[in-house]
Amino acid sequence: MPNAYQQLTHRFQRLSRFAHLGAIAGWDMQAMMPPKGAAARGEALAELRLLRHQLLTEPVVGDWIAEAKTLPLSSSEQANLHEITRQYTLATVLPGNLVEAQSLAGSRCEHAWRTLRASNDWASFEPLLKEVVSLAREEATLRAEATGVSRYDALLNLYEPGMNSAKLDTLFGSVKTWLPDLIQEIMARQARYPLVTPQGPFSTSLQRETGLDVMKVLGFDFEAGRLDISAHPFCGGVPDDVRITTRYSEDDLFSALFGVIHETGHARYEQNLPREWRGQPVAEARSMGIHESQSLFFEMQVGRHPLFLKQLRTLVLQHFPQQPALEEDNFIAWNHRVTPGLIRVDADEVTYPAHVILRYEIERALVEGNIEVGDIPDLWNEKMQASLGLSTQNNYRDGCMQDIHWTDGSFGYFPTYTLGAMYAAQFMATIRQKMDTDEIIHTGDLTPVFNWLNSNIWNKGSLLATDELVKQATGESLNPDHFRQHLITRYL
Amino acid sequence: MPNAYQQLTHRFQRLSRFAHLGAIAGWDMQAMMPPKGAAARGEALAELRLLRHQLLTEPVVGDWIAEAKTLPLSSSEQANLHEITRQYTLATVLPGNLVEAQSLAGSRCEHAWRTLRASNDWASFEPLLKEVVSLAREEATLRAEATGVSRYDALLNLYEPGMNSAKLDTLFGSVKTWLPDLIQEIMARQARYPLVTPQGPFSTSLQRETGLDVMKVLGFDFEAGRLDISAHPFCGGVPDDVRITTRYSEDDLFSALFGVIHETGHARYEQNLPREWRGQPVAEARSMGIHESQSLFFEMQVGRHPLFLKQLRTLVLQHFPQQPALEEDNFIAWNHRVTPGLIRVDADEVTYPAHVILRYEIERALVEGNIEVGDIPDLWNEKMQASLGLSTQNNYRDGCMQDIHWTDGSFGYFPTYTLGAMYAAQFMATIRQKMDTDEIIHTGDLTPVFNWLNSNIWNKGSLLATDELVKQATGESLNPDHFRQHLITRYL
Ligand SMILES: [Zn+2]
Ligand SMILES: [Zn+2]
Repeated sequence: MPNAYQQLTHRFQRLSRFAHLGAIAGWDMQAMMPPKGAAARGEALAELRLLRHQLLTEPVVGDWIAEAKTLPLSSSEQANLHEITRQYTLATVLPGNLVEAQSLAGSRCEHAWRTLRASNDWASFEPLLKEVVSLAREEATLRAEATGVSRYDALLNLYEPGMNSAKLDTLFGSVKTWLPDLIQEIMARQARYPLVTPQGPFSTSLQRETGLDVMKVLGFDFEAGRLDISAHPFCGGVPDDVRITTRYSEDDLFSALFGVIHETGHARYEQNLPREWRGQPVAEARSMGIHESQSLFFEMQVGRHPLFLKQLRTLVLQHFPQQPALEEDNFIAWNHRVTPGLIRVDADEVTYPAHVILRYEIERALVEGNIEVGDIPDLWNEKMQASLGLSTQNNYRDGCMQDIHWTDGSFGYFPTYTLGAMYAAQFMATIRQKMDTDEIIHTGDLTPVFNWLNSNIWNKGSLLATDELVKQATGESLNPDHFRQHLITRYL
Repeated sequence: MPNAYQQLTHRFQRLSRFAHLGAIAGWDMQAMMPPKGAAARGEALAELRLLRHQLLTEPVVGDWIAEAKTLPLSSSEQANLHEITRQYTLATVLPGNLVEAQSLAGSRCEHAWRTLRASNDWASFEPLLKEVVSLAREEATLRAEATGVSRYDALLNLYEPGMNSAKLDTLFGSVKTWLPDLIQEIMARQARYPLVTPQGPFSTSLQRETGLDVMKVLGFDFEAGRLDISAHPFCGGVPDDVRITTRYSEDDLFSALFGVIHETGHARYEQNLPREWRGQPVAEARSMGIHESQSLFFEMQVGRHPLFLKQLRTLVLQHFPQQPALEEDNFIAWNHRVTPGLIRVDADEVTYPAHVILRYEIERALVEGNIEVGDIPDLWNEKMQASLGLSTQNNYRDGCMQDIHWTDGSFGYFPTYTLGAMYAAQFMATIRQKMDTDEIIHTGDLTPVFNWLNSNIWNKGSLLATDELVKQATGESLNPDHFRQHLITRYL
């Protein structure tokens, strides 16, 4: 007779197998599926979600958890039980009718958003978003009661367990003190060196070849994953079979390329999650912030490192003919250009935090009930003026209507982008102390760097809490100075 | 409160959604998955099979069936209930430990076969096949008891409900009276016209383009399906999203092309199964024989029709340069060549039935217990000598070890290939009476032919029993004379 802990691991093994099918069918939906397959696929995935929810929230799971806590467990098993408990609690705390109402309101709002954003129609969007916010507040209240944290923090913890707004205020508060000046300084400096713009068209099949070459350099395991195309790039699949996607534009040589480098970072994390715990919650990625730290480590810390850019240039020139924009100095400067803009997803790594902090401040106030949906456009404009000197007056499309995240109620997600950038900088600072990183990047064999990431991050899965993971890896808790130092070193 | 019939349709709707995920993950496994994904995928698909088996065989399903039979139902609902009952009965009749033992013995035998076939090692293969046969006999006995038919017929009915060996003996017995002489006559005739062999290499990407062009001509709905590559071509996916595959060889222009035409026949059947019944058993394809009749209708009745071959030649010449083998007469003759050979999958439509009848006779005797596994090689050799004048003495690789079917216990499947060829010929004979088929094929717009197939076969799903379907479509039960007449007309 298996004991309660064994019952749990068996149940979560099953859940993970069903999640596998959802991951592949979800990837297929984005990367392969023809249009008429959409309705049946949506139904099939919804049926699977329902099944997984039922298997996860069955009362006996709660009984097993209670009993497992009394059993003698190894520290890894305890960590696994901790993650099991977390997933169970997150899944059971919401009543079914709230989840259903959220799903309905979310898809209504997201669906309408696709056209309303294009027509800059805030007035029609506002009531739909209000409904989503109202339900998100209900969710936040229930989750806050269950976990004893504030309403916003309860949502934040869905993506970044252990993080809270007090810490974010300190981290982001620090950034706000130096970022606007730094942006000004960098811009003034860059204005002195005019850039040559790359001239397309750049064949998408050659872009793909270049991307595959870079993935090889970055250690992507092609026996355990693929690169394909989708409208919205992502990293999906399962650890032994990671599916990353990108999208190509013939006008733009670098967007898909750095997208591929970014997703390769996510992919290597997934491919190297602890093998001996496959199928158990403790083998899953630690948090969205840590996940993003790996993609940004690849994209920003390594990918835009000047010595890496030199090698990237060599690769690019193996597929595309020389042109003035591809001269070494211009190649590097082009990929280091800093330009305040309205659109988050187009932002460089220097201005990106401004976009995130603005969203964090607004969504937090929104969830906590300190502002209402109607206040968003003015606040957005005000904060964009303050941080990047740009106006979004009456420009909802490129202002508060630009992101998909809020449309389906994903409040608490945005901070993970900048947490990721900070973690990445801190990991690199530690690696720099352990090895001659510039020399390693110069030689092109990044194995020692990847080995450090593997033993300190990837292979740790969720065995440690995030703060403990970062402390064990770098000797300190998250410290935004490393990120600041990184920006100064690279851009000034 | 839903009634018992509604409970059943709801349960089968769920089953169909889970089957959808299995179909896509199964396609992915063959067409997309990198090698390291295999273990986790196998586990995920096994977990899904288990779930589907549990949902299908839950005792309450039996209660609903019993109660639904007392309800007033439309004739379509009755047909659906009939198919539901059939699936339930097929799934519940075997004890779990037999299914498990079969699965184990089957994968052991199939796995070993891959290397043992290559090394022509019958001695090592024999004990593994014995185990599979022994379990298949157990299965056949249980199914026979449950359905009141013979042991072999009980397995045959898994693939071809309503068919039995008495009918097969008549059908195949008729073929045996005329086929050997017909083959001799055709060969003598063809020997008079020497053929020019197509000279490769034929670029696989151009082969793919040609295949896509033919699929368009044949009405494949690209908004509801795809063409990809796999080691073993198949038609998978779901009706709104049919995935067909092929494999290309640079040496061979026609193998992939006719493979694509064949799978397009399967695909159009799936794409046009009755939409209003999607997700219910009555909306599934009628039988393996009827399925194969559609692929063979496309490949043989249409695809190798001389007037279609002329158009195919035009398409080929849009992608490949002219060469002597592609001159019109040679193009047609090349795709009409008849050559007795040892390998079933390489056989032309004239010699193919000989391969099937041989296997039918052996597998039937094997399942009924009239012969033992040790008798197979000699019987095979004897029957090959009699039907095609070829020896397989000591050549197990190209004799009784050539097929995968028996390795995992799929006895009763082989007859469906030749049933399909016969149904296809009978459908074409009826269509010829309704419209000027040669003229339609000549013009290139096959819509009237497809419309006939759609209303008589595709859109009927499993609403009618096979014999009734064929009678309503053609005015008579399956009659092998149409197949004979087709071969005589085309090849003599
Ligand atoms: Zn990312
Ligand atoms: Zn077929």
